[in-house]
Amino acid sequence: MPSSTEKRIASVKAHLSHSVSPSPSPTESLAAERANPSFPVRELTYFVDGGQEITKLNEKFMFELERTAVWKMDDIHNLPLPAVRERALKKIKSVLHNMANEPPEHFQRRVVFMGLVDPGVYTRLNVHVNLFYSTLSGQATPAQLNYWTKRGARTMNGVTGCFSMTELGHGSNVAALETTATFDETTDEFVIHTPTITATKWWIGGAAHTATHTTAYAQMIVKGQNYGVKVFVVPLRDPNTFDLLPGVNIGDIGKKMGRDGIDNGWIQFTNVRIPRQNMLMKFTQVTRTGEVVSPPLAQLAYGALIGGRVLMIRDSSNFAKKALTIALRYAAVRRQFSANPTEPETKVLDYVIHQNRLLPLLAQAYAVNFTSMEVSKLYRNLLDKMQNARPGDDMSENILILKETHATTAGLKAFCTWNCLKTIEQCRQACGGHGYSAYTGLASMYQDFAVQCTWEGDNTILTLQTGRSLINYYQEAKSGGNIPAGVGYLKNVEQLSALRCQGDDIASITAFDTIIEAWGVVAANAVRTAADIFDASISQGASKEAALESCAVERLHAARMHCYGYIFKKFTESILEAPQSVTVILNKLCLLYGLYNIQENAGEFIGSQYFSTNQMSIIRQQVTELCSAIRKDAIPLVDAFNLSDFVINSPLGRYDGNVYESYFNVVKSNNPQQPVPYFESTIRPILNANYSTQEIPDLEIDQ
Amino acid sequence: MPSSTEKRIASVKAHLSHSVSPSPSPTESLAAERANPSFPVRELTYFVDGGQEITKLNEKFMFELERTAVWKMDDIHNLPLPAVRERALKKIKSVLHNMANEPPEHFQRRVVFMGLVDPGVYTRLNVHVNLFYSTLSGQATPAQLNYWTKRGARTMNGVTGCFSMTELGHGSNVAALETTATFDETTDEFVIHTPTITATKWWIGGAAHTATHTTAYAQMIVKGQNYGVKVFVVPLRDPNTFDLLPGVNIGDIGKKMGRDGIDNGWIQFTNVRIPRQNMLMKFTQVTRTGEVVSPPLAQLAYGALIGGRVLMIRDSSNFAKKALTIALRYAAVRRQFSANPTEPETKVLDYVIHQNRLLPLLAQAYAVNFTSMEVSKLYRNLLDKMQNARPGDDMSENILILKETHATTAGLKAFCTWNCLKTIEQCRQACGGHGYSAYTGLASMYQDFAVQCTWEGDNTILTLQTGRSLINYYQEAKSGGNIPAGVGYLKNVEQLSALRCQGDDIASITAFDTIIEAWGVVAANAVRTAADIFDASISQGASKEAALESCAVERLHAARMHCYGYIFKKFTESILEAPQSVTVILNKLCLLYGLYNIQENAGEFIGSQYFSTNQMSIIRQQVTELCSAIRKDAIPLVDAFNLSDFVINSPLGRYDGNVYESYFNVVKSNNPQQPVPYFESTIRPILNANYSTQEIPDLEIDQ
Repeated sequence: MPSSTEKRIASVKAHLSHSVSPSPSPTESLAAERANPSFPVRELTYFVDGGQEITKLNEKFMFELERTAVWKMDDIHNLPLPAVRERALKKIKSVLHNMANEPPEHFQRRVVFMGLVDPGVYTRLNVHVNLFYSTLSGQATPAQLNYWTKRGARTMNGVTGCFSMTELGHGSNVAALETTATFDETTDEFVIHTPTITATKWWIGGAAHTATHTTAYAQMIVKGQNYGVKVFVVPLRDPNTFDLLPGVNIGDIGKKMGRDGIDNGWIQFTNVRIPRQNMLMKFTQVTRTGEVVSPPLAQLAYGALIGGRVLMIRDSSNFAKKALTIALRYAAVRRQFSANPTEPETKVLDYVIHQNRLLPLLAQAYAVNFTSMEVSKLYRNLLDKMQNARPGDDMSENILILKETHATTAGLKAFCTWNCLKTIEQCRQACGGHGYSAYTGLASMYQDFAVQCTWEGDNTILTLQTGRSLINYYQEAKSGGNIPAGVGYLKNVEQLSALRCQGDDIASITAFDTIIEAWGVVAANAVRTAADIFDASISQGASKEAALESCAVERLHAARMHCYGYIFKKFTESILEAPQSVTVILNKLCLLYGLYNIQENAGEFIGSQYFSTNQMSIIRQQVTELCSAIRKDAIPLVDAFNLSDFVINSPLGRYDGNVYESYFNVVKSNNPQQPVPYFESTIRPILNANYSTQEIPDLEIDQ
Repeated sequence: MPSSTEKRIASVKAHLSHSVSPSPSPTESLAAERANPSFPVRELTYFVDGGQEITKLNEKFMFELERTAVWKMDDIHNLPLPAVRERALKKIKSVLHNMANEPPEHFQRRVVFMGLVDPGVYTRLNVHVNLFYSTLSGQATPAQLNYWTKRGARTMNGVTGCFSMTELGHGSNVAALETTATFDETTDEFVIHTPTITATKWWIGGAAHTATHTTAYAQMIVKGQNYGVKVFVVPLRDPNTFDLLPGVNIGDIGKKMGRDGIDNGWIQFTNVRIPRQNMLMKFTQVTRTGEVVSPPLAQLAYGALIGGRVLMIRDSSNFAKKALTIALRYAAVRRQFSANPTEPETKVLDYVIHQNRLLPLLAQAYAVNFTSMEVSKLYRNLLDKMQNARPGDDMSENILILKETHATTAGLKAFCTWNCLKTIEQCRQACGGHGYSAYTGLASMYQDFAVQCTWEGDNTILTLQTGRSLINYYQEAKSGGNIPAGVGYLKNVEQLSALRCQGDDIASITAFDTIIEAWGVVAANAVRTAADIFDASISQGASKEAALESCAVERLHAARMHCYGYIFKKFTESILEAPQSVTVILNKLCLLYGLYNIQENAGEFIGSQYFSTNQMSIIRQQVTELCSAIRKDAIPLVDAFNLSDFVINSPLGRYDGNVYESYFNVVKSNNPQQPVPYFESTIRPILNANYSTQEIPDLEIDQ
């Protein structure tokens, strides 16, 4: 061997890589995280849930789902679409006796866990309960509601419903729907009709396979005059044969990004005749002779929309909890790179950057949890007031509350669903390559959740609506009017915007009052900017719509800033009610939520001069330090969400940390496909191909 | 009828909603957008593609794909996973004769369009070409490469390959892989072995169904000593029977978020014996007697990774083009709300907020297109230099260029794939509810693209690597060393950070030189902040790794700021080479790209005092005005991307704008499922259920 090669050998031996020391096992790694929490985990669970009784109920519902055979989730990824649909309906069937027999508030809680396990099933049930039946409750006369309930419309035994509002060509602009309901006085019927392709009812959940009836939104035409969009109960199928009724044409919308358990369909009506009494007449009535009687309090029809949004704020908190449980438990088990070869590899959760990616989102999940509880309370109070109102009562205060709740929930629905979607994706990416597998749960969670950003009010449009209300409240306050507490910072915008953070020490900068004030200043400035543009447009002769359009970018921005501050404030208010044992950790989370988002919107705070660049540097440092402080409790904090392994449904998020073995087992048992089924048809021809020759006839043309 | 009712009737009649005027048809709406473009569309296409010849080639390849029967896409959403896999391989088979017979640079271009139509197929082919065969080209000796090529490893006729690097427990930290390759001197063989579950090769594309061979990465153990990770060719299946070879255990990874056409698998080796000659020996050699000979230039092995990243930067541009074509054409057709009842509803593209959502992303797609072309050029030059190098040449300059290209492409891969994913999601949401349908193309595009953020280098880790290089260059420059032009702003950070934007007029603020300088200031500050923390840690006695960890958040941030400025600069440089007819529109796009991202990172620019808050307000106004100016050309600008309807594959993105009819037709023909198949099994029992009675035996226990 030549000597140069010998030298190269020597150099290799000098650089031999050492073998890495064995790491603690995954289960040991996760157990170690629970050795010494800084707070009593169970106490925090009770507080997050809203009380020990509720925690017990939650656990009962999770347990019962897990013990119901049809709710098995281990084969779901290999089911074709029709089988997914059938399985979904069987899952709903498994809880209908609960719906019929347990208190509605208990059943709603049961449904939450159904939704966390299988969002498609959840939607399929909610279409009946929260869209179809809610529309009856909200828009039918007492006699009508009684009629449909007796026929089984509440519990699906007799009537299964869907909700036909959206059309192929019309979503957000309900007033422009094309479907018509024309009154035929001679037969005392309405004729429901789809005049064009764009008028086809579209995305109608439950239409493809489930519904016997629908509540259809259509332009009501009586004696040649259009009275705008009203709601009609239209039978779709014969409940004995499930044949489509005459004039009803229904198809399956088919594959979607997610939620394949819900059978969205399209519906075309061709001169379908229904009795006049199928028009829901709580607000508008049509008499036998075609007289149209107007609604005294049409605003009250708002209510149903708010309910859906309140649920979506709650969903945003719950899915974030599930996603973070998966990503953080996995991060406490996954090891990658070691500081030096003699040490075990480092848990990825111990990297600053990983903490920075996930822990502000953990703080946000807590923030949205408490905000959601507050908003639900507001909504329940509102409903109570509405239901207790008597004819002749002065409803003006209720309508004010209703309007505020409407504006607040619109913006929060958008803000919370957007941020939850981002959280899911961040958690998915934080699991590295394994986040791309269907079996680890985050991919389908993204696909299922994504629709929340566009349905029941497109997020951009909702945010603009909130921005519009903020401008109104600002103008109201400027002219000395009364505005709700939630937008109290709009009362004295001039003084507020002159405020600066006092003191360069950490304590002053990170006081909750400082942060509330800071968000107030930034939101107030944003609202004023939007309002100024609006006013300028009006004074230049623009219509109100045109003026609103001229400040659209600023309105959207103002609504976003408002939501940050609103949620932070709700979080601080909730902590006041927390048991002392958990206030320290909740204060840390709350502070992280507030400061992280200040950092992410630094331009607003420096631009408004509320914080100096020096103060902003301190905020940045505090964010990193808070992440580091909360990291010690990261696993206890996701444990406190108290979601069972069945609900988590991801090998990466298991309570015991045995991630690799269970991930391998679920993948292995799911995919036994050997031998390769298309070897003869496709692979052998590829392996045996010969591309180098082309057959050329052995002759000359001239010959 | 009582008079109060009469009044209510009168009030209804007074508020009758007017019927909305008919809108122009979708095709008329889109045609109108093309009436008067401000630039010659065809000229822009040539420039975007890199010349008229390339445009012609692109059109040829799109046309040929469309005319190949197995590439039909209309039934893809209803195929079960095994059928998707088989179809994917048939698609690959349809182009193998092209791969064998046309120039590689032509075939690569053909593959681009295959990827835009079906990303799973693209990956399945690329696993063979750009991972398996590239590894042979890069790491085999000439004799070894010749051997495998003769056996059909280049064109798949004989050898189909996969690439076994990642393991269940190890991704980014390749040095810690657990698979072993132990040299058995007695038989002159290596023994390939998977010692644990976490050592299972995981995510291996092509392993489940396709590959006869793999290039396996394993710890090489010779005479009891571990020499670190090396590469070995391991046969997996008998090419005649496709049976797994002894000791090889393979399974299917199964369902993923997307790219179901690629058959990712897992592989366990149990004492699999391969000839010593199957070790790829370009860099490290093992002799018959077990002597290990070291590599003279191990850095050159970097090359293959860079190639993959260059392709992903290009992908980021291409998928953004496709997504934006769909969202913008649909936005020019979709109408929602009208300013007043007598006018047609407004195109959603005419809303300021919609322009603000999509047009900066359009500018970004152009920016990334030109950056991608520049980076490809850099990479090709580098490859040429490497291949022309002779033994004994001084490689130090090449290694410098290699290192720079490595650092630049790492950060750009992360930056561009993240932003492309956000673009796809923004486009999806901009299509409202229809973006959630599988048939409109954006849902699956998201699912397919998402993996680009974690594979072949997790984005966060890559960004941190770029941040690390930036710190190195900064320190190099401070000590008077030479640094590459791409990071030239690090040469005089002190002077740079003292600079302020001169002049409060629009022309000064929006000059390209100002924007380049602004990004330089911000990036330089960010790098310096990271470096200062690094230095402080070192001076407190931290190891280099610990010091890098201490500035991780700042490193990541610095790399992001660097990429913005880098891409903006590349865009401006590209425009210098553009034909005059398209420079006006390109200047607008470039300016929008630069200013929009300054606005989105306002805190950096105000914090560094480069821009005052007043100047920042001007920038915000300019962003909105640029959006409004570019809106007029929005459709010509996506037309210039020149993607055929077949490649777009979305009814919402059709060239002719006939969106509703074609969307309805594709959904209708895809889902003929009537009658409902599970009526008897599931629906009838639900409809007939009785929950009100529970059978109670009619007896008392005492009796």
